[in-house]
Amino acid sequence: MLDDSLLQELLVSNDKKIVLIVADGLGGLPRERDGQTELEAAAKPHIDALAIKSVCGLTVPISYGITPGSGPAHLSLFGYDPIKYQIGRGVLEALGIGLEMTPRDVAARANFATMEPGGLITDRRAGRIPTEKNMELCAKLQAAIPAIDGVEVIIRHGKEHRFVVLFRGDGLSGNLHDTDPQREGLTAIAPKAFFEEDLKLAAVTAKFIAQANQVLKDQHPANTLLMRGFAKHPDIPSMNKRFGLKAAAIAAYPMYKGLAKLVGMTELDTGQTIEDEFETLRLYYNDFDFFYIHIKKTDSYGEDGDFNAKVQVITELDDAMPMVSKLNPDVLVITSDHSTPARMKGHSWHPNPFMLYSPYVRPDGLDSFNERNCAYGSLGCFPAVEAMPLMLANALKLGKFGA
Amino acid sequence: MLDDSLLQELLVSNDKKIVLIVADGLGGLPRERDGQTELEAAAKPHIDALAIKSVCGLTVPISYGITPGSGPAHLSLFGYDPIKYQIGRGVLEALGIGLEMTPRDVAARANFATMEPGGLITDRRAGRIPTEKNMELCAKLQAAIPAIDGVEVIIRHGKEHRFVVLFRGDGLSGNLHDTDPQREGLTAIAPKAFFEEDLKLAAVTAKFIAQANQVLKDQHPANTLLMRGFAKHPDIPSMNKRFGLKAAAIAAYPMYKGLAKLVGMTELDTGQTIEDEFETLRLYYNDFDFFYIHIKKTDSYGEDGDFNAKVQVITELDDAMPMVSKLNPDVLVITSDHSTPARMKGHSWHPNPFMLYSPYVRPDGLDSFNERNCAYGSLGCFPAVEAMPLMLANALKLGKFGA
Repeated sequence: MLDDSLLQELLVSNDKKIVLIVADGLGGLPRERDGQTELEAAAKPHIDALAIKSVCGLTVPISYGITPGSGPAHLSLFGYDPIKYQIGRGVLEALGIGLEMTPRDVAARANFATMEPGGLITDRRAGRIPTEKNMELCAKLQAAIPAIDGVEVIIRHGKEHRFVVLFRGDGLSGNLHDTDPQREGLTAIAPKAFFEEDLKLAAVTAKFIAQANQVLKDQHPANTLLMRGFAKHPDIPSMNKRFGLKAAAIAAYPMYKGLAKLVGMTELDTGQTIEDEFETLRLYYNDFDFFYIHIKKTDSYGEDGDFNAKVQVITELDDAMPMVSKLNPDVLVITSDHSTPARMKGHSWHPNPFMLYSPYVRPDGLDSFNERNCAYGSLGCFPAVEAMPLMLANALKLGKFGA
Repeated sequence: MLDDSLLQELLVSNDKKIVLIVADGLGGLPRERDGQTELEAAAKPHIDALAIKSVCGLTVPISYGITPGSGPAHLSLFGYDPIKYQIGRGVLEALGIGLEMTPRDVAARANFATMEPGGLITDRRAGRIPTEKNMELCAKLQAAIPAIDGVEVIIRHGKEHRFVVLFRGDGLSGNLHDTDPQREGLTAIAPKAFFEEDLKLAAVTAKFIAQANQVLKDQHPANTLLMRGFAKHPDIPSMNKRFGLKAAAIAAYPMYKGLAKLVGMTELDTGQTIEDEFETLRLYYNDFDFFYIHIKKTDSYGEDGDFNAKVQVITELDDAMPMVSKLNPDVLVITSDHSTPARMKGHSWHPNPFMLYSPYVRPDGLDSFNERNCAYGSLGCFPAVEAMPLMLANALKLGKFGA
């Protein structure tokens, strides 16, 4: 991809609309019965009718052979080098439970845990306390510890024993060793800086843990906490700044809303179904020029190893596609962030099927949208980070480079 | 490819086995008679049966249009950037005649030559003296000059007038201008440093040449020597360190054993035939998790311009393939380091046919392994250096990048 400054000189402002549909984990692997992938097994007449008029290819999210997490895989699709812009675990967790983050923030994942009087951790998950108990304890902690040394402390419960702690203040770096000893029968590790710049965060964290232990001391089994994945908000230029786009995100899950907000997209309220999401697209269609629509369940069922349920989600997506086509977007892309083959029950390194429809493509004439056909597509096997310049070009939003 | 530190964080240790078969110079060009390449002309039912279940592509060893030597072409396949890790000619020559090198060593190629009393070089190859004479003279030089200023001198004969000089000591850099004037009728060039750090090597080399001239003064026509291609052992991280692999090399030719040892592979004793090599694989199959098997003669006959003999070697490889398949490796790759089309009688820039079989590929269903089919493979045309991450991924030896 061209570097930012070169690209920005080429940006052209117009009213054309780009719709990027990310079916999470869509790419699959052949099942043993008949050698068909999830995409091959799904009946999807609307998508296939679009595919035949589209340009197709396979995208490599990060690099050959590399299995991406959702964070880097999405950043690539949004046109950001996922190696340059790395998102820490704490930030992803915070985004995932719906916390807003600013560039001054450091987030960490936390667990309630059980500590015996001598200080040894006897249960790193405090017996997986119920979520209701977790909510109650987080509220207690938040009330008792609103700030430390001028650093705002924000606490948000997750499920069971998991919660997130966010430190908001000036001069906080993002590096700190985990305090979680990873095994029972050891003591928690005191917050330890990697570099000199991390000393402030280390001191604040140490005070936070000491105060929290006071608050929790009679709350057996959840009488202490362990922290890991300290990470600072990555200071990413917005899609508006980089690509001149007024971008909106339509996603039902907090993690993906959070990722979209990291790159400056506006989050649109939507429902849980694909139809809800497409209805949201219709409602806001005049207000933005780039729409990211996230479909989660292709990935969820892939993770579950449920081939047929994943096929069913693809069929639901296809059933709803006329709602998108009716809007007649100037550029329409269907792809995945990464593959989640049901056979592997997890993310994989396999490249993503990718189709782009616009009035300006040389249609590949492939009669069905699937991994094998995409391998024959004229885009070839290409880096996912190049999808954004391709979308911009097809929306006539990029001028000529050089004279 | 991800940089070392990122990749190393992803490494997963398991027992899965990777077998990389490098048929040197395998890629070819169509012959005029019927337009078939060597691979297309060869009957190879076993390989083709494997190809139909594999993922295929074409690898670019260095960069588009660049014809590689064996050194950089192999480094790429081993997962090392061949531009970052350049192996000097002297080192390759030393490896090629079976000298072991350490990171303290500098190697240079040397020729016996004829000098007339005034110092002019009248024959840069000393009339191509017989190899026996070369051996005798090298033994004399070695006996007379075991070391200079604390730097050990190691001399090893090659064929005809060619030999290798290896300097082993501390503080030796790898840069020195050639002493070979490249034309007869000129004097030899005094050893000259490129940079200040090269002065020690320049001084040692000057003394070595002066002493060698004394030893050789009555040995007309081989009464002097010329040196070129001074090069230091490249300090390359081992495959174990970079990729977590316990790697072994099965190669009959010294150059390839040497290249494998440069990246820390264990050299396994083997015979001259492909069957010998595959038998060695079987014998050591439980002891390593990565096997590099080098097949030389595809390249040799390519260099000779002998299309039919090259086809015959491919057939021999195919005949022996059941010996490999019987071991059921988790990942099996067949490719070449570079192309050596018989029609060109030499290495070429053409990308290499590449096939990878594992239980986790999306099979391309291509019914024969050859250059044209590989161009339709879903891996596309990709950098050879990415082959290693792909092999690791397919062996489930790489974890997830990011969350």
